[in-house]
Amino acid sequence: MRIARFTTGDDPRYALVEGEPGQEQLVVITGDPIYTPVQPTGEHVPLDRDDVRLLAPVIPRSKVVGVGRNYADHAAELGNEVPSSPLLFLKPNTSVIGPDDPIVLPPWSEDVHHEAELAVVIGKVTKDVSPEQALTRVFGYTVANDVTARDVQRSDAQWTRAKGFDGSCPLGPWIVPGLDVDDLAVLCRVNGTTTQDGRTRDLVFDVATLVSYISEVFTLLPGDVILTGTPAGVGPVRHGDVVECEVEDIGVLRNPVIRRV
Amino acid sequence: MRIARFTTGDDPRYALVEGEPGQEQLVVITGDPIYTPVQPTGEHVPLDRDDVRLLAPVIPRSKVVGVGRNYADHAAELGNEVPSSPLLFLKPNTSVIGPDDPIVLPPWSEDVHHEAELAVVIGKVTKDVSPEQALTRVFGYTVANDVTARDVQRSDAQWTRAKGFDGSCPLGPWIVPGLDVDDLAVLCRVNGTTTQDGRTRDLVFDVATLVSYISEVFTLLPGDVILTGTPAGVGPVRHGDVVECEVEDIGVLRNPVIRRV
Repeated sequence: MRIARFTTGDDPRYALVEGEPGQEQLVVITGDPIYTPVQPTGEHVPLDRDDVRLLAPVIPRSKVVGVGRNYADHAAELGNEVPSSPLLFLKPNTSVIGPDDPIVLPPWSEDVHHEAELAVVIGKVTKDVSPEQALTRVFGYTVANDVTARDVQRSDAQWTRAKGFDGSCPLGPWIVPGLDVDDLAVLCRVNGTTTQDGRTRDLVFDVATLVSYISEVFTLLPGDVILTGTPAGVGPVRHGDVVECEVEDIGVLRNPVIRRV
Repeated sequence: MRIARFTTGDDPRYALVEGEPGQEQLVVITGDPIYTPVQPTGEHVPLDRDDVRLLAPVIPRSKVVGVGRNYADHAAELGNEVPSSPLLFLKPNTSVIGPDDPIVLPPWSEDVHHEAELAVVIGKVTKDVSPEQALTRVFGYTVANDVTARDVQRSDAQWTRAKGFDGSCPLGPWIVPGLDVDDLAVLCRVNGTTTQDGRTRDLVFDVATLVSYISEVFTLLPGDVILTGTPAGVGPVRHGDVVECEVEDIGVLRNPVIRRV
């Protein structure tokens, strides 16, 4: 099952996505599936209809929790050690954008990088959950681009500006519940050229461990998102680029990159 | 004017606080004053009535933005330099608690500190505002305790766990709009003994500068909160303590401290 959030010009609605790539239909459902059972309305909308626009599949009510240096090859490429416990940071909900929304490069950075990641969407209020029970709190999975101003990440003591600016958290194209995420490809392409090509089996801390650890710090709310870290191959994006992040069995999250003059 | 959020057991409501200390009356108003004009309902409730409980005067829809090392004497007491630009961090909305709510010490820290601060409550959607226009975006001011797990702040590369855990952001007791905050006392007392005694005139970056700078990073939403930093005198709080943070002309934010066994 794939669950999308979309608009045809009015308020956002939710839908199941059915059909093969290029021929997807949106099977419209009532309400927000994170809070209410999935119930089709009977309306079908072709995904490629001109007035249809996919939105970020979730806007967190509270937080996006990022995890730094969670693939050994990525930690190494930036000259860092793998941490002994998950290295957490926060992105605010104002950083979230959806598929095809432009990533607007902030004027105060000259070196903005892509970071393709598997994203976890929380389904239930969660505090102090064990790793064994953690996956029961997950609503589903989507794709994220943990866009990072690498120069500012180096110069600021905290990563807040570098990873929290408006548009720094593209999410989408939809949420897949119930997925086995133990060994999925995580890819990034810039203008069609593959830059990142990792697998979730190489996560230093796996999804269950992350959900459990994070829930010992904060209460996770339904719709909160955890970014699980990025594999090696991060690199710059520039005005005019198109960046595609992909997770196997989920889909492709595509965003143009612009710099306002 | 002082604006409080309170409950008598049902849904939260808002009220103007009138009267002298110890004899305050809640003049109940309709709606949320951040979004709707202040309109009394005619109902008056004594603040000291048994069923009345003040709540955090705002729960941010998006974020609490903290500012580190924004008083020179506090930066120095922890052996740090004053930063050349505001040092930003985030606390999630799940960290917010209200007056008299317990600060629950997290089991993974042995050294939790109080930090009394002036807090700014944003009133309008704000992006890229100039310092000259910044104060027009402010709804009002309240008192915050930027509770910090000092040991974990030192051991983790990022401050997310140390400053973001549940209950690490007491706010209250109410919001004062239109206050001149250029030179107000900022105090903390633990069990009645004064530990912090600073003045906002010693802020390294003042409120207008902070709002402007932060708005160049993120869109600020109505109800978002900025913590302006803490003066010297931070120190530990322990199970059984009562910590009082006070800002002159606003009020006293009092919270007991507990450790669950």
